[in-house]
Amino acid sequence: MYNLLKGKRGIIFGALDENSIAWKTAERVHAEGGTFVLTNAPIAMRMGQIKELADKTGSEIIPADATNLEDLENLVAKSMEILGGKIDFVLHSIGMSVNVRKGRHYTDQNYDFTSKGWDVSAVSFHKVMQTLYKQDAMSEWGSIVALTYMAAQRTFPDYNDMADNKAYLESIARSFGYFFGKEKKVRVNTISQSPTPTTAGQGVKGFGGFIAYADKMSPLGNATAQDCADYTVSLFSDLTKKVTMQNLFHDGGFSNTGVSQEVIEEFSGE
Amino acid sequence: MYNLLKGKRGIIFGALDENSIAWKTAERVHAEGGTFVLTNAPIAMRMGQIKELADKTGSEIIPADATNLEDLENLVAKSMEILGGKIDFVLHSIGMSVNVRKGRHYTDQNYDFTSKGWDVSAVSFHKVMQTLYKQDAMSEWGSIVALTYMAAQRTFPDYNDMADNKAYLESIARSFGYFFGKEKKVRVNTISQSPTPTTAGQGVKGFGGFIAYADKMSPLGNATAQDCADYTVSLFSDLTKKVTMQNLFHDGGFSNTGVSQEVIEEFSGE
Amino acid sequence: MYNLLKGKRGIIFGALDENSIAWKTAERVHAEGGTFVLTNAPIAMRMGQIKELADKTGSEIIPADATNLEDLENLVAKSMEILGGKIDFVLHSIGMSVNVRKGRHYTDQNYDFTSKGWDVSAVSFHKVMQTLYKQDAMSEWGSIVALTYMAAQRTFPDYNDMADNKAYLESIARSFGYFFGKEKKVRVNTISQSPTPTTAGQGVKGFGGFIAYADKMSPLGNATAQDCADYTVSLFSDLTKKVTMQNLFHDGGFSNTGVSQEVIEEFSGE
Amino acid sequence: MYNLLKGKRGIIFGALDENSIAWKTAERVHAEGGTFVLTNAPIAMRMGQIKELADKTGSEIIPADATNLEDLENLVAKSMEILGGKIDFVLHSIGMSVNVRKGRHYTDQNYDFTSKGWDVSAVSFHKVMQTLYKQDAMSEWGSIVALTYMAAQRTFPDYNDMADNKAYLESIARSFGYFFGKEKKVRVNTISQSPTPTTAGQGVKGFGGFIAYADKMSPLGNATAQDCADYTVSLFSDLTKKVTMQNLFHDGGFSNTGVSQEVIEEFSGE
Repeated sequence: MYNLLKGKRGIIFGALDENSIAWKTAERVHAEGGTFVLTNAPIAMRMGQIKELADKTGSEIIPADATNLEDLENLVAKSMEILGGKIDFVLHSIGMSVNVRKGRHYTDQNYDFTSKGWDVSAVSFHKVMQTLYKQDAMSEWGSIVALTYMAAQRTFPDYNDMADNKAYLESIARSFGYFFGKEKKVRVNTISQSPTPTTAGQGVKGFGGFIAYADKMSPLGNATAQDCADYTVSLFSDLTKKVTMQNLFHDGGFSNTGVSQEVIEEFSGE
Repeated sequence: MYNLLKGKRGIIFGALDENSIAWKTAERVHAEGGTFVLTNAPIAMRMGQIKELADKTGSEIIPADATNLEDLENLVAKSMEILGGKIDFVLHSIGMSVNVRKGRHYTDQNYDFTSKGWDVSAVSFHKVMQTLYKQDAMSEWGSIVALTYMAAQRTFPDYNDMADNKAYLESIARSFGYFFGKEKKVRVNTISQSPTPTTAGQGVKGFGGFIAYADKMSPLGNATAQDCADYTVSLFSDLTKKVTMQNLFHDGGFSNTGVSQEVIEEFSGE
Repeated sequence: MYNLLKGKRGIIFGALDENSIAWKTAERVHAEGGTFVLTNAPIAMRMGQIKELADKTGSEIIPADATNLEDLENLVAKSMEILGGKIDFVLHSIGMSVNVRKGRHYTDQNYDFTSKGWDVSAVSFHKVMQTLYKQDAMSEWGSIVALTYMAAQRTFPDYNDMADNKAYLESIARSFGYFFGKEKKVRVNTISQSPTPTTAGQGVKGFGGFIAYADKMSPLGNATAQDCADYTVSLFSDLTKKVTMQNLFHDGGFSNTGVSQEVIEEFSGE
Repeated sequence: MYNLLKGKRGIIFGALDENSIAWKTAERVHAEGGTFVLTNAPIAMRMGQIKELADKTGSEIIPADATNLEDLENLVAKSMEILGGKIDFVLHSIGMSVNVRKGRHYTDQNYDFTSKGWDVSAVSFHKVMQTLYKQDAMSEWGSIVALTYMAAQRTFPDYNDMADNKAYLESIARSFGYFFGKEKKVRVNTISQSPTPTTAGQGVKGFGGFIAYADKMSPLGNATAQDCADYTVSLFSDLTKKVTMQNLFHDGGFSNTGVSQEVIEEFSGE
């Protein structure tokens, strides 16, 4: 541990249980000297063990539905009060597709489900940033990170409408990143993470086979939740001040591997 | 004229007036021997001169709100009836941001507006394809094209939430293109067009200065609506059967020009 | 056939035998009314049946080593003479890695081999364009196309240093495309083609397994040499005048497919 | 300072004078507890003040022409000896175009110059890695970084053949990154840095106007050499173990900004 985030204050969305990337990140940020507020949707929190995490990291919990502006306004205002100043870092780790949950195929969407999933998974990121922006709540050279997945660039058939939601989310990072950069010197990026066996990720059909495939396609193997926590710390730190509006692949090389030796062999009939 | 689309049947969305890319495309498709149904939102059609276009090209008009599934189901079923068979080509040229119209800045969105614009500009493309898919209305080796803009990749400050809508639209093209390809041998692509002085485009703030800048940044100059009609014909033709899930820049080279000589000179204080 | 290239004159590099993409393109261009000169390296021609192609298409053959400026100067000057005017289209379909031929692994290159392969596969494209540019040999709105492969973006382990050569080639297309666009209104693009069982392609190790994998990963299946000839015709035609400095994937959707259902199943242990 | 690189050993290429990114990086790495060998071409070193840097950071200097395999073999072997173990990090910051130096326009290249510049600017990176690979000189989870520029993706007219060299360099990072990842668990990335007023950068024609333009186009302003040193430290650290084969834009947001407000205004004639 390096004290990389000493004196920095933040908000971490989406710590559900100890498999969550947000959970690992919270632990890692704490170890680096950062302080933060934990938040999650009231409905999600009842299932999680977030209290344990709060105790461990000396954090407070403020429940907030990330699609609800009042909840977000309260969250941001209270967080500054609790933490004693403006916010230096934010992690958005929120995603959910109702079409996936209800077993609707991509070509047979229920558009009310589509709309709900889009609001939760993508627009929530805009709402979080708009709230921070309006309250002028971010410190100069603060850092905002959202988690995403490569389905935003290439089709993974079981990923369903989450692909489109992630594309929208990454676009928000660029669009809002422009204004947050110009006006407040705040950077906004997304991390495009390897498929990760979180509790949420495991809901996706065919996930086991896919994880194995991705691992064989990645020269360094899949990045884990713990690896992602490390990487996020680097993006919250002062070492990456001029990185903004980027979608950063954190995937052991998957994204730039056309095919691996092992995968070819599988298809060579040998 | 080459008879490139002889015997092909299609549906063209979004011909508003003679400045529309969809209008030019309809004329061009007609000249190449294609037959088609014209459609537009009932509200948009009252403003347009679409009847004139229908007469000129021997087409029928079927009004349809592209966000309304019943309208789309009727449109697709009737189109096959009128045209005498399955559909070979579809042009989706629909986009509208309520935030832009109402003068809301990107950092001050009204999320009801955001949702409405997303439904019209992006989800409508999914709805059109889902309707075609469910009715098994596309011919093998058919071609579906939607128009988009490079704001999906890079921020243009006045483009507002249309950037995010276009990112979602392009993602739909990939996601649905996967299934339409696998199951029906249909291709789906988007054309990322130069800024074009259509009636819709002109509503965007600062559009004049931006058009001039884009023209100076494009080695071949901005692509016009007429150029786009030509390019769309090539994508509807049998010459491009294996091009799918692509976002195709049609912009005189803008997208891959970092800076042009003229623009540097503007900043050299000479 | 549509007469798309009626009255257009061109030069086609790289027709080796009837499996060649350049061979298929020559036949297809001829069918569309274009006239052209065929060229190939003297050493390659002895092996090929290029004469047969020349007879069939009413073309003349001018041998030229595409790494040799004098040969190229002669080729361009003579071609204009034979064809009776400036050049409207050029196809560059040339590639060869000495490291691959000699069985040198990517991590064990002989740099003389590297340099030779780079000159043949990549710099030759610059030399061709520089020669055309200096002789002012291209017509306005002419079209120059080079064939490339996705290894320029993502690693395919057996593709070796051809990956780096193709990256250089694609960069030349952008760089020279800028100047050719500005100064002469000529467009320059690359087509990134599916793995194709040409005589050259077959030399690559593990090619069979890879072709099968690519086919299973491509929603529309691999694009064939014949498909590529069709696509190239569209890029030579007047339908695509404003497309320039682009790398165009022609691959049945491979490039934007993260994984296909079939490939996941292979890894699901079912 | 965080002790991020405590116990790590490295080689830094390209520290010419105190404006160099490599110079700043050496200082920064030293402050983070890393030890390293400095190297540069014998001819470049005579001009530089590299000795001063060596003294300041307690480093030794080993001259090496990065295009010469014997020099590189000696460098790698000696570095391990001096540093007392395998190498954890390498910075490649080398680039030079003879065509630029001699004032040859991109459309009027002297191909001997082209070849020399390619060897120095791009192939040298392969040679360095091949040497490290053959000597099995990299530690597991080591990190190799090369500096590049966005001209590899988009044309900047004065950047000349360095654009093509950088495209080749970035491709090497992916290609070699695949094998280095699979076989040795070593990561390889490139940083695509803002235009930086180093002594080398200043040689490029029109550089002043371009720096000003880039700064106005970057929401956070241009990234400086010092910023780049910080970022490089993060990539050498254990926080980024699963990032590989990536080209990472470090540019204040330039790469994803289509246009900025200031630039539009310049063209609005207001």
